[in-house]
Amino acid sequence: MRSAVVVCLDMEGVLTPEIWPGLSEKTGIDDLLVTTRDIPDYDELMRLRLDILSKHKIGIADIRAVAATMNPLDGAVDFLDWLRERCQVIILSDTYYELIGPLMKHLHYPTIFCHTLDIDDAGCIRNYMLRQKDQKRHAVAAVKRLNFRVLAAGDSHNDLSMLHEADAGFFFCPPEAICSKYPQFPVTRSYPDLMEQLTLAGNLRG
Amino acid sequence: MRSAVVVCLDMEGVLTPEIWPGLSEKTGIDDLLVTTRDIPDYDELMRLRLDILSKHKIGIADIRAVAATMNPLDGAVDFLDWLRERCQVIILSDTYYELIGPLMKHLHYPTIFCHTLDIDDAGCIRNYMLRQKDQKRHAVAAVKRLNFRVLAAGDSHNDLSMLHEADAGFFFCPPEAICSKYPQFPVTRSYPDLMEQLTLAGNLRG
Repeated sequence: MRSAVVVCLDMEGVLTPEIWPGLSEKTGIDDLLVTTRDIPDYDELMRLRLDILSKHKIGIADIRAVAATMNPLDGAVDFLDWLRERCQVIILSDTYYELIGPLMKHLHYPTIFCHTLDIDDAGCIRNYMLRQKDQKRHAVAAVKRLNFRVLAAGDSHNDLSMLHEADAGFFFCPPEAICSKYPQFPVTRSYPDLMEQLTLAGNLRG
Repeated sequence: MRSAVVVCLDMEGVLTPEIWPGLSEKTGIDDLLVTTRDIPDYDELMRLRLDILSKHKIGIADIRAVAATMNPLDGAVDFLDWLRERCQVIILSDTYYELIGPLMKHLHYPTIFCHTLDIDDAGCIRNYMLRQKDQKRHAVAAVKRLNFRVLAAGDSHNDLSMLHEADAGFFFCPPEAICSKYPQFPVTRSYPDLMEQLTLAGNLRG
């Protein structure tokens, strides 16, 4: 008998562009280009980002206006529609609910587990709240305990624990360095590639 | 800071009509009208249903054709769209993935956790597989452990453990008998009612 399948997908880099570099580009604030590659400590990185926003007096309304101009990656909407006809999908992302409304609309409101921002009455971002440390791994483990077969796809370091925890994990358009370091995860470089791998691993055909 | 919210919804009776009575009506097979009210033991009930289908030589293709003519309850699509713009939604149902494709399409493919049928190559339903006993309660507990605030709404006995487990539980159009027996769960009788309760309990406004 075929198992019920849940596919867990990273958002940025798999379905949408990276949000913070996008904000940098559209606001012209180069400082926002820093990523976990520059500052590996995520707490330190988010502190810096919020300080930059505060310094430039950029509030949630400005960020939302910029985020509203972002689009999913080419082909992402069709890919996600295709997948949701065949199995259950949960997006696991280290982004924030307050930033992604317009992108979720483009993607037809899939289920997404991410984090929350603390916004004051004046619309300034005061703080961020990580819902849970290593939330991607915890979510995959939780869904496995509900007796689903869990497949996962992501593109970067913050996806590794999710790929390890899943019944089958795949890279999607990853940087070269990470592929060679983790050869156990098949590499896909296009949506048709990923669709084929998920179809096989999840027995999704027919 | 506001919490990230997941709303868990029953499907039959909350978003769609009951599937098996619908199949009875559309196939003209009265025996399929039996419900958990007649045969409280769900295993016994499903055995009987599968025997009836087998006796009438009704296979999965016939059932799918009938299920394809079913529609969500009036207002359910708008209600669900409204909710998915405001928080995360997971439908928890004791139905089967093989029966609900057309209804899920009508509902814009929300995430749903349910069960699986065992179908042979000739298209006969051989057996059913409950993914997990008391799956609704387990799912709510799992999502709570991921640090979401979980709200739940359902209409009948198989929703009680989910309503108990949730941070806040609501009845939606329940039979009178169950309301008086479980007065701790506020009763809603329309989608605007339920929207108001969920908005308050989940702080979904704005």
